[in-house]
Amino acid sequence: MQMPEPNQAIISQRDALAQGLRQIVGKDWVISDDAQRRPYQCDGITAYMAMPLLVVLPGCAAEVQAVLRFCNERGVKIVPRGSGTSLSGGALPLEDGVLLVTSRLCNVLEVDAHNRVARVQPGVPNIKITEAVSHLGLCYMPDPSSQLISTIGGNVAENAGGVHCLKYGVTANHILGIQAVLMTGEMVELGGAYLGAAEGELDLMGVLTGSEGLLAVVTEIAVRLEPVPEVARVISMSFPSVEEACACVGAIIGVGVIPAGLEFMDRKVLDAVSVLIKEKFDDRTAALLLCELDGTAVEVDALVGVVSDVARAQGAIELKVSTTEEERQRIWSSRKLAFSAIGKLCPDYYCTDGTIPRNKLPEVLNKMADMSKKYGLDYANCFHAGDGNLHPIIMYDAAKPGDLEKAEEFGADVLIACVDAGGVLSGEHGIGVEKRDLMTHQFTEIDLQQQQMVKCAFDPKDLLNPGKMFPTLCRCAEFGRMHVHNGNLRFADIPRF
Amino acid sequence: MQMPEPNQAIISQRDALAQGLRQIVGKDWVISDDAQRRPYQCDGITAYMAMPLLVVLPGCAAEVQAVLRFCNERGVKIVPRGSGTSLSGGALPLEDGVLLVTSRLCNVLEVDAHNRVARVQPGVPNIKITEAVSHLGLCYMPDPSSQLISTIGGNVAENAGGVHCLKYGVTANHILGIQAVLMTGEMVELGGAYLGAAEGELDLMGVLTGSEGLLAVVTEIAVRLEPVPEVARVISMSFPSVEEACACVGAIIGVGVIPAGLEFMDRKVLDAVSVLIKEKFDDRTAALLLCELDGTAVEVDALVGVVSDVARAQGAIELKVSTTEEERQRIWSSRKLAFSAIGKLCPDYYCTDGTIPRNKLPEVLNKMADMSKKYGLDYANCFHAGDGNLHPIIMYDAAKPGDLEKAEEFGADVLIACVDAGGVLSGEHGIGVEKRDLMTHQFTEIDLQQQQMVKCAFDPKDLLNPGKMFPTLCRCAEFGRMHVHNGNLRFADIPRF
Repeated sequence: MQMPEPNQAIISQRDALAQGLRQIVGKDWVISDDAQRRPYQCDGITAYMAMPLLVVLPGCAAEVQAVLRFCNERGVKIVPRGSGTSLSGGALPLEDGVLLVTSRLCNVLEVDAHNRVARVQPGVPNIKITEAVSHLGLCYMPDPSSQLISTIGGNVAENAGGVHCLKYGVTANHILGIQAVLMTGEMVELGGAYLGAAEGELDLMGVLTGSEGLLAVVTEIAVRLEPVPEVARVISMSFPSVEEACACVGAIIGVGVIPAGLEFMDRKVLDAVSVLIKEKFDDRTAALLLCELDGTAVEVDALVGVVSDVARAQGAIELKVSTTEEERQRIWSSRKLAFSAIGKLCPDYYCTDGTIPRNKLPEVLNKMADMSKKYGLDYANCFHAGDGNLHPIIMYDAAKPGDLEKAEEFGADVLIACVDAGGVLSGEHGIGVEKRDLMTHQFTEIDLQQQQMVKCAFDPKDLLNPGKMFPTLCRCAEFGRMHVHNGNLRFADIPRF
Repeated sequence: MQMPEPNQAIISQRDALAQGLRQIVGKDWVISDDAQRRPYQCDGITAYMAMPLLVVLPGCAAEVQAVLRFCNERGVKIVPRGSGTSLSGGALPLEDGVLLVTSRLCNVLEVDAHNRVARVQPGVPNIKITEAVSHLGLCYMPDPSSQLISTIGGNVAENAGGVHCLKYGVTANHILGIQAVLMTGEMVELGGAYLGAAEGELDLMGVLTGSEGLLAVVTEIAVRLEPVPEVARVISMSFPSVEEACACVGAIIGVGVIPAGLEFMDRKVLDAVSVLIKEKFDDRTAALLLCELDGTAVEVDALVGVVSDVARAQGAIELKVSTTEEERQRIWSSRKLAFSAIGKLCPDYYCTDGTIPRNKLPEVLNKMADMSKKYGLDYANCFHAGDGNLHPIIMYDAAKPGDLEKAEEFGADVLIACVDAGGVLSGEHGIGVEKRDLMTHQFTEIDLQQQQMVKCAFDPKDLLNPGKMFPTLCRCAEFGRMHVHNGNLRFADIPRF
């Protein structure tokens, strides 16, 4: 993972830039001090670090506009971020770039139960939206595991997923409108606060969602609110083999049931978890599925019957069905503790994220076993099976020279296997810097070029979160058609037009 | 509605262009004859007509590529269309442009029940997808009223809606992947054939959906298949006033029920319909709601109870609930015949399409009554109430000089009232030429400019369906920043960067 050489001319202007930015956001909200900048050096992937040139915390949308305009005029790069929980290095700072942190933009501005919509600022943590509307029997559905801390602005940037996205869809399905600031400081309003609002225009809200901070800085979001399902019940299903568990995933979806969540844990994860929850899993269990069903009570009772029948037919050894909310929480605790439990098995682990068609699960899981032998690194599997969204956990020891690199190569091999199985490089973590150099494996030159054209239509100077998503460093070689002119990307010069 | 002056130099090359195109698609598939071109002169809005320069019907994706490359090299415009059912003039031909008709690309290429996806060509009529998968208990959910004839490619271009989109979402929510050809003839693959595939890239599939043929020509679509709901029941609810019917719409959604469909018909529509169905509606009825509920039998029974209670509390005079599929079809027939019935009341009618927040329904409906007086034209209302998607039917007589213009002005006033109520210019028909000149009322200069930048990132020469969606004619005046250089739009020159 290589980043472009920092621009020393910009770095040398640090004090002057800090002064200018302080005039915009107030003196307390520009961090230039070394010790105070240090906590901002990385996001959720701590293996990648860089000290941001300056950290700026604007207090309102107008300040975001002024900060972007100021930086745009001076050719200073901006990396926007919320809580910094990205798992692909999407919020990795730049040494010659300003880190724009949205944590002060943390208000729920309006709750409109009639139209089932809330207007929120980007720095609001995901869970706070549900907390603000739960007295109305409503909730915000997407639930990334980081939901206690990750912000809705970051969720939009990464098009975040979560356990319940199998039934309810990812962030993009729950965003109704966006107010965003372009690198020039100009503000755009995309979509609106209700159904169908992105009709009758080019759907720029859609392209902004999941754009990893490369197109604009989001300053306000209208999110869809959903009624809290009346009842949720979970079925824990154990299988004697990984293959049978995988086949059961397809069989459940095949009979027409879309569970609220459908999660997979392999034996290694179960063994690690059983230490923490002080409960043993049946010795014959090679893999466990957790299947959550929600809706009205009558509907859920009926679905529990259907799924149980499917599971038995697919060779499940044991079924446990929650009958109370406490039981449901207890059954889920094994999944919720999985990553902490694995953390106790090894000094370090590396978890990546790729998606495959559900029927390719056994094939790709088998390939992982071969890769583990090749790299001499252990691994475990705990993932969103219903979506075909893999999260292999690769165990390594950062203190052992070469171990991190081997883990990264193992992870890259898994992602390549995902693409080769007809899948994609990401399910919910995005590309960031982690998977950037694998983009050429998934996309053709034309595909990538067209994506970069759209990037340029928003940010022609390439100042917003540069170095992420697109394999910039090989751009001149591989996408020889992108020209740089007076320091600006120019695509009117691209020969194909 | 003004279109740019046709390019006479292009028109004079018609025979040579026809010859070149025949070499690509074969001699039978280029229509240059006057009589044979005539049926292609308009789309669903017959008030707007233009004779296409040539009509070309490619037989495969490679031919689409070759046609676009051929036209791109010669600076010839292309208007892509399917069955031509657009209700906003989106498929209106150009006298100096080739009309590219996708009707020969009409194969369902693959049905994958396991992953619940079908790969289809763009010229497949919407209903044919469901017909191809119904033996598996599956269906393709979006159901525009034109679904017997309108093609899936056209549905993607217009992001088509329909009665069931309230619960199931519009076309964009059901498209998993797109293969499309850029104006250069290059092919791009966007998204993929399963959940989450548009993750980890700029979501160009999202921006292509609803782009009204301005960005690329779609040559293959992977659509999501859904299980056919076990049961559907409809409740017909009559109200003594329009206000109470509108309030009931919000109240149903407010208690947490998302019906499969929730339709509104006013007294004028009911009177017209009762002639056709030979059934009288209660004299006290000022407005009728049809509320469809679907799902498992137990779930639907429970929901029928909830909705009936809400309707009674909101002042419904009479409730009829279907108990058999035949009754359901009979109740729906009034809605399905509404537009034909209105057609018998007046020589001509003009139906437009705008969306408002549900709680603004009474306000905007009242404004329509005032407009009717102002223009001296009668009107009726029959629309997707659950989505706040209005379809006012304005009655006029095309034989009366000035009547069409008054009807268009009335329609424009309704759309302006929609925007002023916090709504948008379209719900499901798109902008096309019909609403193009109203775009400046909904969007700021910056918003429109950013949309046009994305258009330029796909089609910098502005050859794909030009004159639609964006108020082109005022571009130089209103969006003075778009420069034309050597006949090409150049936005690297735009001063704001």
